[in-house]
Amino acid sequence: MQMYDLIQKTRRNEQLTNAEIQWITAGFCAGEIPDYMMSAWLMAVCCQGMTAQETAALTLAMRDSGECLTLSSIGSVTVDKHSTGGIGDKTTLLLAPIVAACGGCVPKMSGRGLGFTGGTIDKLESIPGFRTDLPMEEFLRITKEIGCCVIAQSGNLVPADKKMYALRNLTATVDSIPLICSSIMSKKLALGADCILLDVKFGHGAFMKTPQEAQELAQAMVEVGRRAGKQCRAVLTDMNAPLGANVGNALEVQEVIRILRGEVRNALSDLSLTLAAHMLSLSGKGDVETCRRMAEHALESGAALEKFSAMIAAQGGDALVTQDVSRLPQSAEQFTAYAQKNGYISSIQSEEVGLACLTLGAGRTAGQDTIDYGAGVELHAFVGDAVQEGQPLFTVHGASQELCRQAAARIAACTVISPEPLASAPLIYQII
Amino acid sequence: MQMYDLIQKTRRNEQLTNAEIQWITAGFCAGEIPDYMMSAWLMAVCCQGMTAQETAALTLAMRDSGECLTLSSIGSVTVDKHSTGGIGDKTTLLLAPIVAACGGCVPKMSGRGLGFTGGTIDKLESIPGFRTDLPMEEFLRITKEIGCCVIAQSGNLVPADKKMYALRNLTATVDSIPLICSSIMSKKLALGADCILLDVKFGHGAFMKTPQEAQELAQAMVEVGRRAGKQCRAVLTDMNAPLGANVGNALEVQEVIRILRGEVRNALSDLSLTLAAHMLSLSGKGDVETCRRMAEHALESGAALEKFSAMIAAQGGDALVTQDVSRLPQSAEQFTAYAQKNGYISSIQSEEVGLACLTLGAGRTAGQDTIDYGAGVELHAFVGDAVQEGQPLFTVHGASQELCRQAAARIAACTVISPEPLASAPLIYQII
Repeated sequence: MQMYDLIQKTRRNEQLTNAEIQWITAGFCAGEIPDYMMSAWLMAVCCQGMTAQETAALTLAMRDSGECLTLSSIGSVTVDKHSTGGIGDKTTLLLAPIVAACGGCVPKMSGRGLGFTGGTIDKLESIPGFRTDLPMEEFLRITKEIGCCVIAQSGNLVPADKKMYALRNLTATVDSIPLICSSIMSKKLALGADCILLDVKFGHGAFMKTPQEAQELAQAMVEVGRRAGKQCRAVLTDMNAPLGANVGNALEVQEVIRILRGEVRNALSDLSLTLAAHMLSLSGKGDVETCRRMAEHALESGAALEKFSAMIAAQGGDALVTQDVSRLPQSAEQFTAYAQKNGYISSIQSEEVGLACLTLGAGRTAGQDTIDYGAGVELHAFVGDAVQEGQPLFTVHGASQELCRQAAARIAACTVISPEPLASAPLIYQII
Repeated sequence: MQMYDLIQKTRRNEQLTNAEIQWITAGFCAGEIPDYMMSAWLMAVCCQGMTAQETAALTLAMRDSGECLTLSSIGSVTVDKHSTGGIGDKTTLLLAPIVAACGGCVPKMSGRGLGFTGGTIDKLESIPGFRTDLPMEEFLRITKEIGCCVIAQSGNLVPADKKMYALRNLTATVDSIPLICSSIMSKKLALGADCILLDVKFGHGAFMKTPQEAQELAQAMVEVGRRAGKQCRAVLTDMNAPLGANVGNALEVQEVIRILRGEVRNALSDLSLTLAAHMLSLSGKGDVETCRRMAEHALESGAALEKFSAMIAAQGGDALVTQDVSRLPQSAEQFTAYAQKNGYISSIQSEEVGLACLTLGAGRTAGQDTIDYGAGVELHAFVGDAVQEGQPLFTVHGASQELCRQAAARIAACTVISPEPLASAPLIYQII
């Protein structure tokens, strides 16, 4: 086999065989295929696309480039969930205990945040003492005992993705549906859960800007998951506005606890119940409607809160935060912005909110940045709400008044108040 | 400027500015843009194309990467010609003396052959003593005195093309109209002639397989030439069958001499007269018809033969070959193939003829191969000709009977004799 010929085939829109794709992936990982050939091939893939067969072959070849976990010791059907990333997206923190409380089993590996979207691991690490670097045996034991455990992604999973992504990131070959699909799905498949629920975001604050792009990615991922023998489903959700009220690590944990305690019901809790219902349904716990009722009951009865508390304790964290949110890190300063006129909120651009939180130190612009866990924003009014002049719109938390005021100005600038109410778009666009 | 952003622009089909293209070209030549970024950009160009403006900018940036010749000391309008390469294409050897005999001025730099197409420089070097490595002053002096001189391409012209071509050749980014165009035209523009005639071949034995592809390349090249302020024209010619009777270095020189002596008139001599007419017309010697008559007169009067003889002598070659072709190198063995049936020749696939000559040692498969100057094939019958069983079809010349028989079998296999005459396609398809 010659890399030249395979680049040429992809460039000419001819389908590569599984063996050819395995050969490319293994050769690149082994350093036998030079970067300049690989980047030409990746660009050809970006321009010409890949078939479902090719995408599946690439995903499996990438999965097999490193360690693959065995979850069989858990002894029950396992379900994983992936979100393509958004602003204020703390659904994993809600889903894991809700699903566990309903008898589901969620062994979850998550990532850290980079850029304007937050990472589940950073949010959990804002809980004092919480450990996300557990050894594999402990991860499996906690998942088996409690029904959920969330740790940081192992460094040994899918080395092919790390090497390919580094090259894609230098050669403008990141935004390609089959390449994004194989990057995500190779990691999901290496983790080894039986069922996979995909939450594919679209809008300002998401990687996919339109529902059509999200649909294409979701279809590609579901197709790959099914070809790999997994129960797989995708939910397309709107990320034009931040998800829920709070953005920022400890602030998001706080919102999760308030929802689990039954103090808050909002779009976030509603979406989380729906996602939990799909995860339970994929796990064979019944149809989606039955599972949704189970999930609601787990939330209302306090069973989900108990699971969250147990998981925090098992992972070394201060479980008392579930009773007293003031035990979470808090920023030194706050600044509240108020409505300048009467009207209806027609837009709060989530990307701008994410970028404002980044300037507050709530996220990382480079991998080694440290995080201010208390920093972020609490929204008091949401898209579709009627507001009166002088009513509080949001409160920014940060290390100094200056940082808070700057971030507040940025968020205020992307919060649009219109004279007439707008027809609101549903949060869930489609299930695939 | 960031290479990432420029790759992204090309990938998204957004036009790069002249400054951006200059920056890429200069950065790549200086080793500041790594190969893996350049190959990704080249692949994006292959997939998305480039506008005429971008192609011209790339061509000029490449031209300016090295030495540019100054032909002004010649003191008259200079005309260059480029052929995209074919089998038996010895038009330069005919055109240079014909145009010179009509008062035109042809300072020509040519290449060596690689693969199944021959190189003008190899053909000329089959003449005993002929030197193609003249210093620049001598090249200019001979051109001024005689009206034509043909030397090997200087190593200092367009280093950007050498570096880019090496990378394209490893990454399946060779066959792209704008990249082929800028590779050819950057060298033509660095040479600096006032007028450029392009002979763009299509068919089996050409790089462009269809007239449509050839048309696209021709249009791109003419557009770039005109944007660079040159008199520029392209002739699209059929390369499905070999051009003329002989293929192989000394055999081709022999055919040229026979035509210049008036002993042979064939499709090759007819095409050469037309190309000469266009070169003269571009040089301002009159309209194409007038120039065609001038060219015919130069051929018939023996003036062109005299120019050829003078050029050979000036470049250190044995000018007596023009009187006695047996002074040219000859292979030890010959083998003649005969028609197996009555009919009409409907096809002689030129690529196969070229490959057969390669096996005889008439060309190079790698840059350092030595050439058997006497090896090749003489066709005795041509596409469209009626043939009788037992009539000689062609004679192969080579170092051994075995080599000759093998090559003859290959050429016989691609020579099709049909029961009915076929409508023959004209050699010249279009003038652009």
